[in-house]
Amino acid sequence: MAKLPEILNKTVVAKSRFFAVEELELRFANGEQRRYERLRPGSIPAVLVVPVLDADTLLLIREYGAGVEAYELGFPKGALEPGETLEEGALRELQEETGYGARRLTVLKTVSLSPSYMGHLLSIVLAEDLYPSRLSGDEPEPIEVVPMQLSALEDWVWREDFTEARSIAALYMVRDILRARDV
Amino acid sequence: MAKLPEILNKTVVAKSRFFAVEELELRFANGEQRRYERLRPGSIPAVLVVPVLDADTLLLIREYGAGVEAYELGFPKGALEPGETLEEGALRELQEETGYGARRLTVLKTVSLSPSYMGHLLSIVLAEDLYPSRLSGDEPEPIEVVPMQLSALEDWVWREDFTEARSIAALYMVRDILRARDV
Repeated sequence: MAKLPEILNKTVVAKSRFFAVEELELRFANGEQRRYERLRPGSIPAVLVVPVLDADTLLLIREYGAGVEAYELGFPKGALEPGETLEEGALRELQEETGYGARRLTVLKTVSLSPSYMGHLLSIVLAEDLYPSRLSGDEPEPIEVVPMQLSALEDWVWREDFTEARSIAALYMVRDILRARDV
Repeated sequence: MAKLPEILNKTVVAKSRFFAVEELELRFANGEQRRYERLRPGSIPAVLVVPVLDADTLLLIREYGAGVEAYELGFPKGALEPGETLEEGALRELQEETGYGARRLTVLKTVSLSPSYMGHLLSIVLAEDLYPSRLSGDEPEPIEVVPMQLSALEDWVWREDFTEARSIAALYMVRDILRARDV
């Protein structure tokens, strides 16, 4: 495995309420030096929850995405609150965004957004054995819950309002996991 | 379909060489107002290339990710240069990062990073009919090319050094496309 580059210097070059940009000065193992910018990694873990309503039905939500200026489909997600475990945060987000709780929560994998430019990580959590239970979140308008059929995965993945790579990756992972159980 | 929120105001609140943070003042259809921060959408399209070496072999690359401070596996990707089409950009990145060209390039889908906080989009391009051809890029050190077997997809997806959600989503999409051809 390659030796990690040495971080010679690290400076915050821009900062807002939610974002901070760091400039890194790096020396690679071969002596090459580079200056890179990255978003400062968030210290708060985040979760994405894949709710399984029944053997062929997952729950998506439709929510306004200010980044892309459109309503987008995706799985419920959010940052943990202080002291929460991944499972506790997933259970809370699920109740706030879909009106369901889950008796079984399984952390599947932690994914990155853009390893070159961002340190942000998000854990994909499978939520099963759902039951009705609503918590109120801080959303500006009610979130629409959209059931999707796993057997029609292709119809969903290619939709123009379903673009978030983390939700698409999670969808395929869960489809394969549920299929493997059936064998 | 819900009516889009009105953007009442848009201000750049932080800026560096590569990033700009915008604050948006939004009024939702129900009258609720919110202030959100987002990364200003890049105006330059980006591509992620999935190189198919043979029926069961895709090419990954291993590269240092300054965001996560680790060497990570993923598919070749990068921003277009001025005047390039998606296919031209994909062909160039492929040659720079893997040492192969491709006779057949197919744009599959455009995915988003984080629809709530970022406007960044990336088009997934399938590259087939490969031939040896190297272009030199601006990488600080040679990029390692790592062949992966589609039939062993599970062994790759769960690795701790393969975390990028866009590459994982692309891997599953291409696996399903290639499988469907075989039927």
